[in-house]
Amino acid sequence: MSWHKVDFMTHPASKYAPAKPGDPVAAIDTPALVIDLDAMERNLAALAAFAGERGLRLRPHAKTHKSAAIAKLQMAAGAVGVCVQKLSEAEALAERGVPDIYISNEIVDVAKLARVAALAGRVRLSIAVDSRTGIDRLAAALKAQGTQADVFVEIDVGQGRCGIAPSSAGELALRVESHGLRFAGLQAYHGGAQHLRIPAERLAAIEHAAALVRIAQASLAQVGVPCLLVTGAGTGTFELEAASGVWGELQCGSYVFMDRDYADNHLAPRLQGVGHLAFEHALFVKSQVMSVGAAHAVVDAGHKSHAIDSGMPRVWQGAFEFRNGGDEHGILTPVAQEDGRRPPLPNIGDTVWLIPGHCDPTVNLHDWTIGVRGGLAHGVVESIWAVDTRGCLT
Amino acid sequence: MSWHKVDFMTHPASKYAPAKPGDPVAAIDTPALVIDLDAMERNLAALAAFAGERGLRLRPHAKTHKSAAIAKLQMAAGAVGVCVQKLSEAEALAERGVPDIYISNEIVDVAKLARVAALAGRVRLSIAVDSRTGIDRLAAALKAQGTQADVFVEIDVGQGRCGIAPSSAGELALRVESHGLRFAGLQAYHGGAQHLRIPAERLAAIEHAAALVRIAQASLAQVGVPCLLVTGAGTGTFELEAASGVWGELQCGSYVFMDRDYADNHLAPRLQGVGHLAFEHALFVKSQVMSVGAAHAVVDAGHKSHAIDSGMPRVWQGAFEFRNGGDEHGILTPVAQEDGRRPPLPNIGDTVWLIPGHCDPTVNLHDWTIGVRGGLAHGVVESIWAVDTRGCLT
Repeated sequence: MSWHKVDFMTHPASKYAPAKPGDPVAAIDTPALVIDLDAMERNLAALAAFAGERGLRLRPHAKTHKSAAIAKLQMAAGAVGVCVQKLSEAEALAERGVPDIYISNEIVDVAKLARVAALAGRVRLSIAVDSRTGIDRLAAALKAQGTQADVFVEIDVGQGRCGIAPSSAGELALRVESHGLRFAGLQAYHGGAQHLRIPAERLAAIEHAAALVRIAQASLAQVGVPCLLVTGAGTGTFELEAASGVWGELQCGSYVFMDRDYADNHLAPRLQGVGHLAFEHALFVKSQVMSVGAAHAVVDAGHKSHAIDSGMPRVWQGAFEFRNGGDEHGILTPVAQEDGRRPPLPNIGDTVWLIPGHCDPTVNLHDWTIGVRGGLAHGVVESIWAVDTRGCLT
Repeated sequence: MSWHKVDFMTHPASKYAPAKPGDPVAAIDTPALVIDLDAMERNLAALAAFAGERGLRLRPHAKTHKSAAIAKLQMAAGAVGVCVQKLSEAEALAERGVPDIYISNEIVDVAKLARVAALAGRVRLSIAVDSRTGIDRLAAALKAQGTQADVFVEIDVGQGRCGIAPSSAGELALRVESHGLRFAGLQAYHGGAQHLRIPAERLAAIEHAAALVRIAQASLAQVGVPCLLVTGAGTGTFELEAASGVWGELQCGSYVFMDRDYADNHLAPRLQGVGHLAFEHALFVKSQVMSVGAAHAVVDAGHKSHAIDSGMPRVWQGAFEFRNGGDEHGILTPVAQEDGRRPPLPNIGDTVWLIPGHCDPTVNLHDWTIGVRGGLAHGVVESIWAVDTRGCLT
């Protein structure tokens, strides 16, 4: 193995959390990543109920929250386990007591696969494959350590990233079984469909994805391999996958927090007979005004505090536009209201709440989430959760 | 103080480094942030020589490398100290033995200013101000703890972010002195000028900035306060500030690593009599091909491995375009060469080296930098440095 353990004490950056339990919201240092726990719990319950009512398995993607504490809340609400994208994420969550983890991504490195095989001896592990090389190396690693993992063959359902052509599913499934591995089904996730703004666009994308899954299922049937499960779907489209009758497991991640980008999707009250769940914003960056100019104010949160791959954060309950001011600064300018007036600039020291553009990489920038009970205005800090898989890249 | 110490053991994400000293480059796990130590040392020496020959102080910005080890190399090469943007960065570097730190940014929070005052008792500390409120609170905090800091008044020289109008410099300097604080000079940094592509654009921006500094100096002279030092400049423009005769201290940061965005600046061999230094790329993300499609390949490095605020990374020594594939994936497509041919797709498991678009926030995504001696092709891992101020937001 090419990694090695390093003394925790050599890494001072993780030393201080920006609050402690019992603090009033006003005492949270800035910038800090704050969870509205009440809103988050309503989101967790809503999706769990949705899946439960339809008899669908729910396996939320832990790439969103990166936290064993939240993974356990999801499992307590009925999730069968969680997904991750990287081996080191799986290792960190397993170490924290998460018992059922699916690496919904390919791993082809021989040294990494030895760690996969070792991890498979500690938790119930699943993993995706999309190549003969990947299958052969995974099989060799598992055989060498005498462990077992569920194997999903990933098909490309429109994302254009990983995954084989659906018509090759049978061939790869046979190869999985030829090694004595458990073929568990198909990984079929369309990331690109999640943020199509118009409901009809999302519907078209998922109908196309469903057609591709059926081609893969036919390919499996042709070689006599049963397709036990199709897993996929995200916060932007899961109602459509659920209604399709094709998917048996939902992998939504962002529903737990909801970010600005998902909130920008237009919701269809009813689309082809499919209702929708409107999740609440539960993740915020608390920032502070540090400088005030003639026509703008500057807050102490830049793109080191919130990811901007999906655009700028939105100012929560304030009529200000947020412009990027670099790694450590955000620039606020007043926006004209319906009556044509613009709000006054805030004062130095004022608190400004931001809704991040994209929750997953925003969480990855922080060491801690600060959970607040009772609302952002007058609530109290209840939880300080480590972002357990922050920076887990390998 | 609103932060509190948390047990290191609650934070497992920092546990594994992707290599160990003595490893060949091939053994570095992916994705990993790799420093070409030979190239970095040439960059350090080149800027130190430039400043030394001109009698200018050099105070590199540690926001780029976020590492006490590199800060010490810079000081050993002649730097007077380093800059940081955040208090928690200053605390982490001070704890690691960096003796002279300038927080080139405003801090207005009372709880934070108590920490500033405490830190001023442990290292030689400087800080920027741009408001009466900020000066009064800083003075109260220092007085309460009986410590001293050098205070720079920040003026806006074209960035449109923090900093007062230059004509107000005298008023704020007087206010600094009225509290018995040391007024050390002017903070005058034009971040927006650094990435203007055309040399003439950068020249115009810095000539304008210099004119604004002179207005601030006149404002100081008018109230009888001497301007001891003007500090500022970055990797994109420092030759211009050096030639202006106005700036006495250079704050370049990115020169140590050079990113794709700075390399995209057009260099002028000689512009208004000012030469230029061409720094070398010294920072790379090592990635691995994990999936190969019909016309594209996928590497295991996405925007969780490299910041994309300044655009995509460039593939190093490979004729491939890099497209964003999300947090954990990058998509490579072959680019036609001069003879019209496209290179073949790489194979699963192949190494692909990336030059990040923007070095500072890329470093912030990693817990470790892996220093390689002897080149990326056949070198050996020499250093494993913690990214000491990674995630230091407050």
